[in-house]
Amino acid sequence: MSPSATPKIHLYTAGTPNGQKISITLEELGLEYETTHVDISKGMQKEEGYLKINPNGRIPAIVDKTIGKDGKPLDKRVFEGGAIMQYLCAKYDGEGKISYAYDSDEYWETIEWLTWMQSGLGPMQGQANHFYRYAPTKIDYAIKRYQTETKRLYTILETRLASQKSLSAPSGPWLVGSKLSIADLACFSWVNWAEWAGVYLEREEGKEFGVLREWVGRINERGAVKRGLNVPEPFAMKEKMQSKEGEEEFAKFHSGWVMKGQDQDQETHK
Amino acid sequence: MSPSATPKIHLYTAGTPNGQKISITLEELGLEYETTHVDISKGMQKEEGYLKINPNGRIPAIVDKTIGKDGKPLDKRVFEGGAIMQYLCAKYDGEGKISYAYDSDEYWETIEWLTWMQSGLGPMQGQANHFYRYAPTKIDYAIKRYQTETKRLYTILETRLASQKSLSAPSGPWLVGSKLSIADLACFSWVNWAEWAGVYLEREEGKEFGVLREWVGRINERGAVKRGLNVPEPFAMKEKMQSKEGEEEFAKFHSGWVMKGQDQDQETHK
Repeated sequence: MSPSATPKIHLYTAGTPNGQKISITLEELGLEYETTHVDISKGMQKEEGYLKINPNGRIPAIVDKTIGKDGKPLDKRVFEGGAIMQYLCAKYDGEGKISYAYDSDEYWETIEWLTWMQSGLGPMQGQANHFYRYAPTKIDYAIKRYQTETKRLYTILETRLASQKSLSAPSGPWLVGSKLSIADLACFSWVNWAEWAGVYLEREEGKEFGVLREWVGRINERGAVKRGLNVPEPFAMKEKMQSKEGEEEFAKFHSGWVMKGQDQDQETHK
Repeated sequence: MSPSATPKIHLYTAGTPNGQKISITLEELGLEYETTHVDISKGMQKEEGYLKINPNGRIPAIVDKTIGKDGKPLDKRVFEGGAIMQYLCAKYDGEGKISYAYDSDEYWETIEWLTWMQSGLGPMQGQANHFYRYAPTKIDYAIKRYQTETKRLYTILETRLASQKSLSAPSGPWLVGSKLSIADLACFSWVNWAEWAGVYLEREEGKEFGVLREWVGRINERGAVKRGLNVPEPFAMKEKMQSKEGEEEFAKFHSGWVMKGQDQDQETHK
């Protein structure tokens, strides 16, 4: 499947869960890539040049600049994180480092969990972030709605991982089969931001996300993951959360651009 | 790709956009399928038997009961709508009726738009439904947030379809290439419910979703789509919307089970 030329990927990203899942994927695959920091705090994702790469005006996106059979760069653009992960594995993971062979049972399980992250975990935890951290007034109904849904989704992950234990000793459990895959990386990228949504993996006795916590810790230990988390800038959230001041400063900074973007969108789409 | 045995799919669904997109896909592919109505108004999606099919406790899901090479039913379960659409096309659309060959450029474009629907259009329009129709108090901030995002996403679709015109005359435009594909069907299933989210394709001069409206109309004309929309029960929303009474009745019915489910989840995931 891999072209004989060395893969060269141009990544357009920012330091969010959806961005980090792609830089982590590139690191795990050991691919050569260069990065453009799309500074979402300055609205760069809505600039005309970038919209040619991602018409949706969001991060992440890639341009595959690998040299094709005709001697020219492929210049293939892919947007939407879940699509990028599938693309990178189809093209450059013939060895199955973090994916399974196309059309195998494990392939379809991977697609299920990747889609589950894209349609549930990401959007719902993202709404928890919005109402818990960014919205100008605290709307209890909305905070509770999205934090509850995030916890429900974490419970689904916890149950799945627990049921996978027998498959994947001693390295696992993993979401699909007996190895780490893009299904784990996609879900990890969000669960790793749990506290930002006001959801905690350590809770009272009997309500712990024990398997999930162990899985997050295990993934965080990987060199490729550590490198990927610091693209395009050092991953600051966990450090900021060490102090109340840092936490508030981080929330204030992000609330600023989130609300400005929402105001602009509401003006455009009246 | 297709096994020689006649495909037999068991569909678990309800009459929502996410359910309809799968029954429409099955109809477009001309596949033999039987349906179980998972009555979400009665919480059937959370019953233990169903959780073995979809651990996430949501619709849709399928079990592929096609006879395999060993003479036994495959009994392959797939959950998450986007995953099911990819699976059905990979297994049973070798002719490319509504999909493109694996790893072609059009294949990746299809995956992009399918993922875009799963991660943006569906979840955000779904939240607009929640706050506009179901939540017990009207929270203006949330209604405006999600209706705006729905309109922003419709604008992305409108722009994409307009740019596709030259590719797909006279039948098109379509989201990918020169034919209708699962990318269109997935997005259509949501845009077809626009008015339920309080978003209208007919707006004042200069702000119309003209191309989108034409595309929705064109897809609605298809026999397979008409049949798929009426699975597992007649599609009632548009008829109910004909009168204020009907609209309120429909909202009240759905609000009942939505809020009951949310209350139960909040009790479980305190």
